[in-house]
Amino acid sequence: MSSYRPEPEDKFSFGLWTVGWRGVNTFGDAVRPPLDPAEAVHRLAGLGAYGITFHDDDLIPPGSSAAERDAILGRFRKALDETGLTVPMATVNLFSHPVFRDGGFTSNSRATRRYAIRKAVRAIDLAAELGARTFVCWGGQDGAETEAGKDDRAALERLREAFNLMCGYVREQGYDLRFAVEPKPNEPRGDVLLPTVGHALAFIGELEHPEMVGVNPEVGHEQMAGLNFAHGVAQALWHGKLFHIDLNGQRGVKYDQDLRFGAGDVKEAFFLVDLLERSGYDGPRHFDFKPPRTEDVDGVWESAAACMRNYLILKEKAAAFRADPEVADALAASRVAELSEPTLGTGESLADLLAEDFDVDAAGERGYHFERLDQLAMDHLFGVR
Amino acid sequence: MSSYRPEPEDKFSFGLWTVGWRGVNTFGDAVRPPLDPAEAVHRLAGLGAYGITFHDDDLIPPGSSAAERDAILGRFRKALDETGLTVPMATVNLFSHPVFRDGGFTSNSRATRRYAIRKAVRAIDLAAELGARTFVCWGGQDGAETEAGKDDRAALERLREAFNLMCGYVREQGYDLRFAVEPKPNEPRGDVLLPTVGHALAFIGELEHPEMVGVNPEVGHEQMAGLNFAHGVAQALWHGKLFHIDLNGQRGVKYDQDLRFGAGDVKEAFFLVDLLERSGYDGPRHFDFKPPRTEDVDGVWESAAACMRNYLILKEKAAAFRADPEVADALAASRVAELSEPTLGTGESLADLLAEDFDVDAAGERGYHFERLDQLAMDHLFGVR
Amino acid sequence: MSSYRPEPEDKFSFGLWTVGWRGVNTFGDAVRPPLDPAEAVHRLAGLGAYGITFHDDDLIPPGSSAAERDAILGRFRKALDETGLTVPMATVNLFSHPVFRDGGFTSNSRATRRYAIRKAVRAIDLAAELGARTFVCWGGQDGAETEAGKDDRAALERLREAFNLMCGYVREQGYDLRFAVEPKPNEPRGDVLLPTVGHALAFIGELEHPEMVGVNPEVGHEQMAGLNFAHGVAQALWHGKLFHIDLNGQRGVKYDQDLRFGAGDVKEAFFLVDLLERSGYDGPRHFDFKPPRTEDVDGVWESAAACMRNYLILKEKAAAFRADPEVADALAASRVAELSEPTLGTGESLADLLAEDFDVDAAGERGYHFERLDQLAMDHLFGVR
Amino acid sequence: MSSYRPEPEDKFSFGLWTVGWRGVNTFGDAVRPPLDPAEAVHRLAGLGAYGITFHDDDLIPPGSSAAERDAILGRFRKALDETGLTVPMATVNLFSHPVFRDGGFTSNSRATRRYAIRKAVRAIDLAAELGARTFVCWGGQDGAETEAGKDDRAALERLREAFNLMCGYVREQGYDLRFAVEPKPNEPRGDVLLPTVGHALAFIGELEHPEMVGVNPEVGHEQMAGLNFAHGVAQALWHGKLFHIDLNGQRGVKYDQDLRFGAGDVKEAFFLVDLLERSGYDGPRHFDFKPPRTEDVDGVWESAAACMRNYLILKEKAAAFRADPEVADALAASRVAELSEPTLGTGESLADLLAEDFDVDAAGERGYHFERLDQLAMDHLFGVR
Repeated sequence: MSSYRPEPEDKFSFGLWTVGWRGVNTFGDAVRPPLDPAEAVHRLAGLGAYGITFHDDDLIPPGSSAAERDAILGRFRKALDETGLTVPMATVNLFSHPVFRDGGFTSNSRATRRYAIRKAVRAIDLAAELGARTFVCWGGQDGAETEAGKDDRAALERLREAFNLMCGYVREQGYDLRFAVEPKPNEPRGDVLLPTVGHALAFIGELEHPEMVGVNPEVGHEQMAGLNFAHGVAQALWHGKLFHIDLNGQRGVKYDQDLRFGAGDVKEAFFLVDLLERSGYDGPRHFDFKPPRTEDVDGVWESAAACMRNYLILKEKAAAFRADPEVADALAASRVAELSEPTLGTGESLADLLAEDFDVDAAGERGYHFERLDQLAMDHLFGVR
Repeated sequence: MSSYRPEPEDKFSFGLWTVGWRGVNTFGDAVRPPLDPAEAVHRLAGLGAYGITFHDDDLIPPGSSAAERDAILGRFRKALDETGLTVPMATVNLFSHPVFRDGGFTSNSRATRRYAIRKAVRAIDLAAELGARTFVCWGGQDGAETEAGKDDRAALERLREAFNLMCGYVREQGYDLRFAVEPKPNEPRGDVLLPTVGHALAFIGELEHPEMVGVNPEVGHEQMAGLNFAHGVAQALWHGKLFHIDLNGQRGVKYDQDLRFGAGDVKEAFFLVDLLERSGYDGPRHFDFKPPRTEDVDGVWESAAACMRNYLILKEKAAAFRADPEVADALAASRVAELSEPTLGTGESLADLLAEDFDVDAAGERGYHFERLDQLAMDHLFGVR
Repeated sequence: MSSYRPEPEDKFSFGLWTVGWRGVNTFGDAVRPPLDPAEAVHRLAGLGAYGITFHDDDLIPPGSSAAERDAILGRFRKALDETGLTVPMATVNLFSHPVFRDGGFTSNSRATRRYAIRKAVRAIDLAAELGARTFVCWGGQDGAETEAGKDDRAALERLREAFNLMCGYVREQGYDLRFAVEPKPNEPRGDVLLPTVGHALAFIGELEHPEMVGVNPEVGHEQMAGLNFAHGVAQALWHGKLFHIDLNGQRGVKYDQDLRFGAGDVKEAFFLVDLLERSGYDGPRHFDFKPPRTEDVDGVWESAAACMRNYLILKEKAAAFRADPEVADALAASRVAELSEPTLGTGESLADLLAEDFDVDAAGERGYHFERLDQLAMDHLFGVR
Repeated sequence: MSSYRPEPEDKFSFGLWTVGWRGVNTFGDAVRPPLDPAEAVHRLAGLGAYGITFHDDDLIPPGSSAAERDAILGRFRKALDETGLTVPMATVNLFSHPVFRDGGFTSNSRATRRYAIRKAVRAIDLAAELGARTFVCWGGQDGAETEAGKDDRAALERLREAFNLMCGYVREQGYDLRFAVEPKPNEPRGDVLLPTVGHALAFIGELEHPEMVGVNPEVGHEQMAGLNFAHGVAQALWHGKLFHIDLNGQRGVKYDQDLRFGAGDVKEAFFLVDLLERSGYDGPRHFDFKPPRTEDVDGVWESAAACMRNYLILKEKAAAFRADPEVADALAASRVAELSEPTLGTGESLADLLAEDFDVDAAGERGYHFERLDQLAMDHLFGVR
């Protein structure tokens, strides 16, 4: 049995805001002390992570002087150097400050939108400065509680404008940086713009430089809409748009739980890892979770470690599932590979197909044996094969 | 007070399967007798509808001989001629027969996929024959209960193949027909391919003839995922892809209710009509609902009439809302139109924007007055202004 | 058309924490300044409310000295005296402080449970001191993210112990005070103890003094579980247990929105008011909402006023619905009153019933005409009759 | 590693309607042939089940003559005798026939209610005749799509009347039979009476013979409302009311999936088995699932076998979890057992408690280490310890 010890090659990364979450929410005050970014670097490196990520404000508190900024960055870089931890991704906080109460890039306030772009561009500079290759944009405050208050088509137009400006800036600066849009259906706004992976993928197709922009799906965000996360990621992969991924846990359609990876829908986590590992995706496995408020500082690190452990456990299981000869037999019985055969044969015309005869009632009797296949997956998940 | 009498200019249409639904579901047997298509035409025309739509099998029972087909079509056409009712849309049933138990265009069975394309092409011919301009594709059985049993990327590839073949056929035949993809998150399958408007829009972007394919969003389908239908339609409009629309009612995240239009989320229905009427959408207002099993035949027609009545009521209210000077004032206070102003000024560069100064704390204090605006909408909805 | 001007006889009350909410949540900082309790009293009175309610900590900040407490209470009482506003209900905050991170009455920590009871008893004293007749208990932190961490049966036992102790204390002190349990399915905990009105009603039946304890259902809390609020309130009424009610708005199964009353599920709000007004319930119509973060201080009062306005609008409409002769006719056609007739006739035995003959197929053909009835309700809701 | 071979002592039972489900739903026709009840008995016995259950109509098709009934019963009894299979539970179908389109015991039609009671009494006789000890009542058609059409309080009154009559009948006949109410939130009706375990438990408290009536919670039914099933079962146990249980799988808030046990929310299934096995519940482990329409007859039996297999796997894992010394350590660190200690000490008065001093800020710093505990549970679930 493997020890499930994470190594940098596993490409596990964590947001500074995840292990640093102090526990403030609508119904509760802070339960944990602030976490020093440099300490976060050392702790995560010690646990086997390879990367750390941040919002601009996580690293450099708003209002810091240039000197303070330099000092913070110096300490942070030093920690990165000492540990070998990287910064594969960075992002911008366009939601906490009251100015973003109606969103950032799509706030009804033009002045706020301008500020949002300015703040994003500076965060892009910081991302590039620290070597990040992906810049995530989560627009959680870009939404509405009343349809009357938000002209959605104008909002999409402004969002397009913002992405076009940011892409232009990155090209101009020659940064090696791509963007990843993070969808979410609701919370903190009643309804959020680009609520699912699908909506984000469609939006990207309308940009000036669609090749520079992909998606950053988050497990819980899709599941908050009752959508199957593995299916959503598969569609993103099909479009060539899985640029980054946020792993965490959610237990059904409710508030955004941000549980540690694996602790939500176990079965979907298994199939997600199975998909990711077979897909050729070689980006970070990024954990965007919140250690529950019941945890003290020790619990924070235990839950961070468990995120990685669960990924490695599921990776091992998924590999065993795919290597199992009985699974191969069951996949064949379920005709799974047959779906990869074009429906029209080579050299065949639609007219040929139209001329074909078919005993539809006889064909309708045939079963697909998915239950056997799914149970084999569960046996592997349970570790009983 | 208006009489809310529907006229053909209102472009209301109904599926034959809606008023003809006999009430069979997982837990209950048929409660109503079969409905003759010609009678449906006469009844709908009498109520003020302008169009009737159908799945191939609704009109021509599977297994009909050529003579029976001709007789049915003759009677149906005669009813259309007598009433002036049109057939603006038709679709294909790729879900009821056992052969479609794993889907149609994306069934793991290649023979089934071939049959599905064949059946669709014949339904396209029938649609063209009856003058339909839109062909809807709903792939509700194209999905999975286990992720192991369905290779999603292959499924999307096969779905693309099917649409490319169908578009090719329509072009070849010179039919004046466009396609509309109807998304749905789940039911009858545990998870359905292209679960939301967003996923469908993204998919369409990958087709050979994306200009021939749009979406057919259904109120309840998006709401089954907890998504805001008006926002989804707005995004479809922004992409220029609202080719058709299915109006009905749903009360929250649960099984597909197919209530009559207006009887579900009243507020969202108001904002939907407000959006549709201002959007320039000039296609059918198509009702895809199921008269509840508690209704007898009289109740069927009462609920059909109420679908149209509710649309007209909401249309009148939405117009009054937009014409109300206090609403104009509230929209201004909420800075709704400001979102249509480009964030970057004419002739301005990103560098100009970056150089700007901004008192973020002062700006953060300003409120958006959405509550007043939303309450004005509700006052109009309630008819108390 | 009525002016919908609230009067004290309407018994509208507001939580100090509602109009005083500063907008802090998981993703956003405070957007509004603190609200002085005395000012809240004056503003609410000016709007036509009759009552104000509070958590102990809303009124007396934790850590206040006895002198500070007296000063605050003095100012608050003075404002009440000046305005005639009453304090019909009070409650205790057992959730904000980190000590309650695993709940109050059912925290795994016995010391915390003891503190929770102590804090509750002091809040009961304060409630009695200010003339409150209802003491609400919301145990939102009493729950779990992992089933392993909470012994539910022990939790229910401890909750029973807490209620028995509090009831005993109230009896001993001779306070004229009843308790109302407020259920909620989740948030801030992954799963909350007593998740619905039903669970709370069942729990109450196990107390030493069940007659002293009822429920305080909240619109959004039941709707977060996809449950119909009007049906839940009806069951509470049937048990004689509707001791208090929290009115607000929620748009579906998602995070706790606490929208203003009427702004969520409009149809359910109509039927709720219809039910409440016919039920004989004569307690406060208490608004437990949160003015959205997009609102400034003016928006807070506008939304508070709109809560009451919507109630009065719906009350007028519900009365018109019940007075409409066509509605009476439709109710008869739907055989609604027939459900109040005992199934067994007077003097009839089960044996008599068993001997009866019945043409089940003929009876099965008869419809219930609910669509017509529901549409009449919608016509009244829309104000088009 | 265990072979997970079910034995009669495991008390696994199946509904005749589960393995016999032919696959008819709103969107699809029958995919499987009828299943002979006697064959079902033999197949289930062969798989290791100990019991079979049925609705009256599953066993005796409506309209059967007395002779036909006798013949069917004879064959069925013979199969039971040959296999040793028992009939631990039976129930009544008050939903399929059109006459029940508005419910059974609470239909607005008094004649229908009378028929429902008659049908139920005859089904009770059949249950007793075959030795059943539990009679389940599921009232899925007892509900509404419009609040206007159903007087809930009258409905609860009629439901009480029905249960009082049935309990009286059972007492009179001297049957050794208890009732179990099965709650469900919605489907086939928009909202169903007694939507959750909590509502059913509360209702039972109002009966003439509450001791004769408990609940029959179903995994998927509670999960359709986003409720945690293990917590609901725990509350039923606390009330002494877990009389029967329906095991199956559901993947979130959507239509009623009736997946095989274990195939839905895996984590909750683990904690459910952990709870059941430690609770002293000694009734049947009854599977109420529907083999997906994709399955042919072989798939039906594979999925039935997998229900039992998953239970046995989880039972073994739960036992290992409870026996693990590190789990014991983690439970202690999470202070789980401390919740079983009364909050008030022996001989202590509330006054003593009120006099106590407490450093609330210091106490607030202490964490509960639930993440470690939950991860240990997951390690056991995964079989990696």
